Amino acid sequence: MSGPEDRARSLGLAIPDFQADGYYGGDFGSMKSHHVVGPVLYLSGHVPEGPDGPVHPGRLGRDVTVEQGYAAARQTGLNCLAGMRYAVGSLDNVKCLIRNLCFVAAAPDFTDVHLVSSGCSDLLRDVFGPEAGLGGRATIGVQSLAHDHCFECWLEVELHETVDG
Amino acid sequence: MSGPEDRARSLGLAIPDFQADGYYGGDFGSMKSHHVVGPVLYLSGHVPEGPDGPVHPGRLGRDVTVEQGYAAARQTGLNCLAGMRYAVGSLDNVKCLIRNLCFVAAAPDFTDVHLVSSGCSDLLRDVFGPEAGLGGRATIGVQSLAHDHCFECWLEVELHETVDG
Amino acid sequence: MSGPEDRARSLGLAIPDFQADGYYGGDFGSMKSHHVVGPVLYLSGHVPEGPDGPVHPGRLGRDVTVEQGYAAARQTGLNCLAGMRYAVGSLDNVKCLIRNLCFVAAAPDFTDVHLVSSGCSDLLRDVFGPEAGLGGRATIGVQSLAHDHCFECWLEVELHETVDG
Repeated sequence: MSGPEDRARSLGLAIPDFQADGYYGGDFGSMKSHHVVGPVLYLSGHVPEGPDGPVHPGRLGRDVTVEQGYAAARQTGLNCLAGMRYAVGSLDNVKCLIRNLCFVAAAPDFTDVHLVSSGCSDLLRDVFGPEAGLGGRATIGVQSLAHDHCFECWLEVELHETVDG
Repeated sequence: MSGPEDRARSLGLAIPDFQADGYYGGDFGSMKSHHVVGPVLYLSGHVPEGPDGPVHPGRLGRDVTVEQGYAAARQTGLNCLAGMRYAVGSLDNVKCLIRNLCFVAAAPDFTDVHLVSSGCSDLLRDVFGPEAGLGGRATIGVQSLAHDHCFECWLEVELHETVDG
Repeated sequence: MSGPEDRARSLGLAIPDFQADGYYGGDFGSMKSHHVVGPVLYLSGHVPEGPDGPVHPGRLGRDVTVEQGYAAARQTGLNCLAGMRYAVGSLDNVKCLIRNLCFVAAAPDFTDVHLVSSGCSDLLRDVFGPEAGLGGRATIGVQSLAHDHCFECWLEVELHETVDG
């Protein structure tokens, strides 16, 4: 029977390794990557920081298309998976998603913000499965994000067992 | 002695029925309506989706007045109540509010965002009472929301008993 | 051995007293200052409300410099410390930070939002120490905040012992 790690492998996902390469959040200020209280893993903000820097930086409805935004949100999802592994060792320790609050840098008249977030939530659904991989969600079109990123998410997941943060 | 369900009835509130009609969130992407961990119910994002579609879509300070925004936030509160019933069967299973993070789609110079959110929080206070019905709150004026909604909220409540999510 | 209260004293911080002066949130609408569930203290939104009103109101990249924004975020951190004392009596009851979601009112092309938030997170790190004082973090550049504040934060902390909210 396959779990999230198996599915991530069969999907051939390029998940970063924060253990080896460090969590990129330190570039933005004093913060840590995650915190655990009881069965809840709180992830720090994740952005579409890729191997070659920001993926499709800029603003939806001006310099970033919905397809590009979706790809950036997917890269963000990969970083969330990296953050989960870094926090609790394996994706198999994650029971299910709780909620994901998503932010999309948007030009004034761009309202298709939810189509962008699906790049992140579709990936998480594929990895954790059609039940455990769905969380509560909201998407907010915002003015700007650090380093001109076009997407950021704020995610909590539930763990199978209590892990000390 | 009256509880939230009694008060909702005597206020004559038109609370949607997600059991019969489904949670509208599926129109926005892959997500679920709520999640419960221990005594905490996390609601997915709620918007002023009414029986006839978005209530007063657009942006505060441009095409939506404060009064209209207040009404939209109140409709959002009705949807939150629907989400609570859908999640835990009855409003009487809700002990109190925890926090509500509110987003108002705003024109650049509109800063009365808090007056809009009160449409949601005043309703929740009336239903859950002057103590249990108050939560922590913040209101953020944002660029845009999905489907051009003018308001969205992100609410957690505490339950009387642990309910499996 | 020094704890957060000792460090706050030696830093000479001017932390407001909400017990004496009240939480300023009531000026914005129906809300309470905080809520506790188990070991988690959820603070209501905090803004740079200072003794003489808003500290550096306006928008980053237009009427507020990064240095002024940093000072406003630091004032917000002082208010968060006041909120913690008000909620649980002493900063020494706080075990560590969980996460802090930060909002910066920004002009369209301002993307250095994270430099502003550090005014808040650097202060919390100094008070709670280099481990306990770091939390997960995200910073969002937004259109506007109530009363034209330039910064707002949404913070959760973990407590040493369960305190009834």
